[in-house]
Amino acid sequence: MISGKNLIGSKMSANGEKTYRTFNPIANQENEWIFNEATTAEINEAVALAHEAFKEYKDVSGEKKAEFLNSIASEIEALGDELIDTYCLESGLPEGRARGERGRTMGQLRAFANVLKEGSWVEAVIEKAQPEREPMPKSDIRKMLFPLGPVVVFGASNFPLAFSTAGGDTASALAAGCPVIVKSHPMHAATGELVSSAIIKAAVKTGMPNGVFSNLNSSGVEVGQQLVKHPKVKAVGFTGSYHGGMALYKLANERKEPIPVFAEMGSINPVIALPSALQNNGDNWAAKYAGSITLGAGQFCTNPGLVLGLEGNDLDSFARTLSQEIVKLQPSAMLHPNIYTKYLEGKQELSVQNGVEVLVNQENTANANTAGPAILRVMGGEFLSNNKLHQEVFGPFSIVVACENVAQMEEILDQLEGQLTGTILGEAEELKTYSGIVDSLQEKVGRILFNGVPTGVEVCSSMVHGGPFPASTDPRFTSVGTSAIKRWVRPVSFQDWPNEFLPQALQDDNPLKIVRLEEGTYCK
Amino acid sequence: MISGKNLIGSKMSANGEKTYRTFNPIANQENEWIFNEATTAEINEAVALAHEAFKEYKDVSGEKKAEFLNSIASEIEALGDELIDTYCLESGLPEGRARGERGRTMGQLRAFANVLKEGSWVEAVIEKAQPEREPMPKSDIRKMLFPLGPVVVFGASNFPLAFSTAGGDTASALAAGCPVIVKSHPMHAATGELVSSAIIKAAVKTGMPNGVFSNLNSSGVEVGQQLVKHPKVKAVGFTGSYHGGMALYKLANERKEPIPVFAEMGSINPVIALPSALQNNGDNWAAKYAGSITLGAGQFCTNPGLVLGLEGNDLDSFARTLSQEIVKLQPSAMLHPNIYTKYLEGKQELSVQNGVEVLVNQENTANANTAGPAILRVMGGEFLSNNKLHQEVFGPFSIVVACENVAQMEEILDQLEGQLTGTILGEAEELKTYSGIVDSLQEKVGRILFNGVPTGVEVCSSMVHGGPFPASTDPRFTSVGTSAIKRWVRPVSFQDWPNEFLPQALQDDNPLKIVRLEEGTYCK
Repeated sequence: MISGKNLIGSKMSANGEKTYRTFNPIANQENEWIFNEATTAEINEAVALAHEAFKEYKDVSGEKKAEFLNSIASEIEALGDELIDTYCLESGLPEGRARGERGRTMGQLRAFANVLKEGSWVEAVIEKAQPEREPMPKSDIRKMLFPLGPVVVFGASNFPLAFSTAGGDTASALAAGCPVIVKSHPMHAATGELVSSAIIKAAVKTGMPNGVFSNLNSSGVEVGQQLVKHPKVKAVGFTGSYHGGMALYKLANERKEPIPVFAEMGSINPVIALPSALQNNGDNWAAKYAGSITLGAGQFCTNPGLVLGLEGNDLDSFARTLSQEIVKLQPSAMLHPNIYTKYLEGKQELSVQNGVEVLVNQENTANANTAGPAILRVMGGEFLSNNKLHQEVFGPFSIVVACENVAQMEEILDQLEGQLTGTILGEAEELKTYSGIVDSLQEKVGRILFNGVPTGVEVCSSMVHGGPFPASTDPRFTSVGTSAIKRWVRPVSFQDWPNEFLPQALQDDNPLKIVRLEEGTYCK
Repeated sequence: MISGKNLIGSKMSANGEKTYRTFNPIANQENEWIFNEATTAEINEAVALAHEAFKEYKDVSGEKKAEFLNSIASEIEALGDELIDTYCLESGLPEGRARGERGRTMGQLRAFANVLKEGSWVEAVIEKAQPEREPMPKSDIRKMLFPLGPVVVFGASNFPLAFSTAGGDTASALAAGCPVIVKSHPMHAATGELVSSAIIKAAVKTGMPNGVFSNLNSSGVEVGQQLVKHPKVKAVGFTGSYHGGMALYKLANERKEPIPVFAEMGSINPVIALPSALQNNGDNWAAKYAGSITLGAGQFCTNPGLVLGLEGNDLDSFARTLSQEIVKLQPSAMLHPNIYTKYLEGKQELSVQNGVEVLVNQENTANANTAGPAILRVMGGEFLSNNKLHQEVFGPFSIVVACENVAQMEEILDQLEGQLTGTILGEAEELKTYSGIVDSLQEKVGRILFNGVPTGVEVCSSMVHGGPFPASTDPRFTSVGTSAIKRWVRPVSFQDWPNEFLPQALQDDNPLKIVRLEEGTYCK
């Protein structure tokens, strides 16, 4: 049962008069549930509760926090088909995707639970006293990571589970020891409410302080703005548009105490098809990329929106095959009419730019909000001189750029803005021949791939999902994978602190049995 | 021989017409050297050169970079007494301090050289492919840290060597693989030129690319502003005032591509004297703190500017002894008449606040620019209600606050802004009795000390010199110690990259023999 209310800790609250509904893009009509937007008083209550909860939650052991995260995963699973059905009604995404994304969400929570149980993530460093050192004795100094405080999470439109209410941002912040307040995504408020109820159940079951999690409804920007400006909020996680991310980033920097905003704002994910890939394997790559470009109706932040190759028959043939393959695939509904309309506008705007050849632009009017794919082609010189062509078109869309020569390809990469991913297709030896291109690409991205597709982001400790601005506001951190926990912490040094009053992670006999850097050597 | 020119890589340049001199605060007159402020063209030239140098320098091996850093240390030593004499003429600080700070500067460079030779700082993480995994095969993914690009360093007034031209910011950025452009501190431009010449000599000797280091003269704010706004500059290190740090922070955030600014902006470093410390050890602590407060004429960012105790005879006695001890110490000249004047204004402003009792305020008119110490006393209630009393007075100055009870002490800590350090004086058992106070203090600081003085920051891998805003703009990083290298890097993931073309740190057979996280386990 969807109540439409906010969850302030374990309390349901709906004091506001402003209401809204979510939308079913396949039925092309609003869903039945009615949501109450959070009021200023409710926002302040949720933050005050999170602030109080932090005092206790920051000291909860890794073992107990792991129980909490595992319990969230179980409670999400226990929501059963109601969650799957709700997800589909609010996103237009198919059931298989819903189940897959639910699995990913639970997997992420459990991965962070394992990180907590293992415990070494706190980066304990120990350097004991040297009272005899000349000319000055050395103090005992030890440091480790501590949580920042209450975190506000803005979920993504395109991942109603894995990048939303209990997604990577929430999981990593809770793992770090930070209470979380989710600004519920207006496109899937019911999915968000179900997941929130699972988190609250898990918090109660595992004895976490009330206020460790809250979920606030909001259809506009005010709730989010108030949350980011609140002095007791200490960090923000966001996945969404450049416009939205930068608005929050600016707000956070204008606070009396600026706070970090980890905004992941999309990317066109350049793919470099080197000569051998086009010559020997062009059809194969064309078919694979047709699949990658249309995956989830192209609504992936790692969607390959730009393919660069050297002009010639091989590139032409690749582009032709890509265009033929892409229209064979069943187009699907986008998440929301607003997103669909933006997609149509975006592909239209780029299609009419100087020198752009439309290889394919499928229209689809039979099914509501259903995105026909588009592949454009343009010469490198035109691409270089027209920044409009660099912008992301969120949907099943890509531009093939025919570069006159290697120097021009390198110039294009040097001029590109920061990206989440970059991909090289070719033979290993070409990485040497085209080392300038590889170098330029690496400077622009958070993840560089060889002979693959950028969609499909593995949740693991080696993942970097983030990249130079404007792909994200802080390329020093990742939003996917277990390292995401590092966004919500800061180090504190203890000098000459009595052993028994140190946090366990820093005590002499290493009671948590974690890996620590002791006198310059990693020990356990 | 001081030329007064800018160093743009290995080229001396003085195209500007604006000149300035440095000041000898003891002689109370300008020094003889004349410096040419950098022009816009010179600024652009230095950045362009750094950008070019980065393409080569980022790939220089750890071994070679270590040679470079060690060579800088040797070349600084080889400057001999000219450096010591120049330092004293430009700072008014005594010769012993100059020699000590030179040793610290060389020690920092060598510490980073050791970090590079050891090599594990790149945080290599390796997770190999699992082609058989169900339902989807897993790619090979590996990540490590890479340098951000050209870094601009603003040196500190109060450490002409260790926090300036070749100080911790420069050493850590060069170690990370980032070229450095120093905006020379106007109070010690000659010291800066000498050190810069040593860096350039070392760069040439060890075969580093031209432009890996430049030094630009500037007496105003324009050169710094232009540097921070330059699109090819990728990060900024700053040590100085809140006003200066925030101005740069704002500029950096308003860029089309925002960049990180690591500004360390000072602190009043609260000290909590718990009852046992005052009762059993008050005189001893009073003498120690008299020394700490006046060290380097109080011009330390870790100067203890605030002592909190519970009201009563013990605290009164401590305050009285502190006041008596502090006037026994020889007062010394401050760095510059501007700093001296600000100190006089600052202590005057705080002295006349409501409820403030001036325990001692030594005037010193015999010697120019020489700072007489001041100790004020105020009740906790007054301190709570008057934010002026929370502000840093840069110099040999401290306020003793008599708290009515433990709750008020905790309230004061909760209301304090972020600090570099916090200190507890007492007996170990009191850490339990006063755990609320310890908790509140820890939330506000980057380093927490037990029974010590905050001045004297050890350069080691467990040090956190930084703290919650406004002590620094980014409490997630330290500016002192080997972890400072982490400010200038970002991670990049390699997916399915051919082994032989991976960076050595990520190759299968671990040719650098570094500690890596492989499949979740630390290996070497």
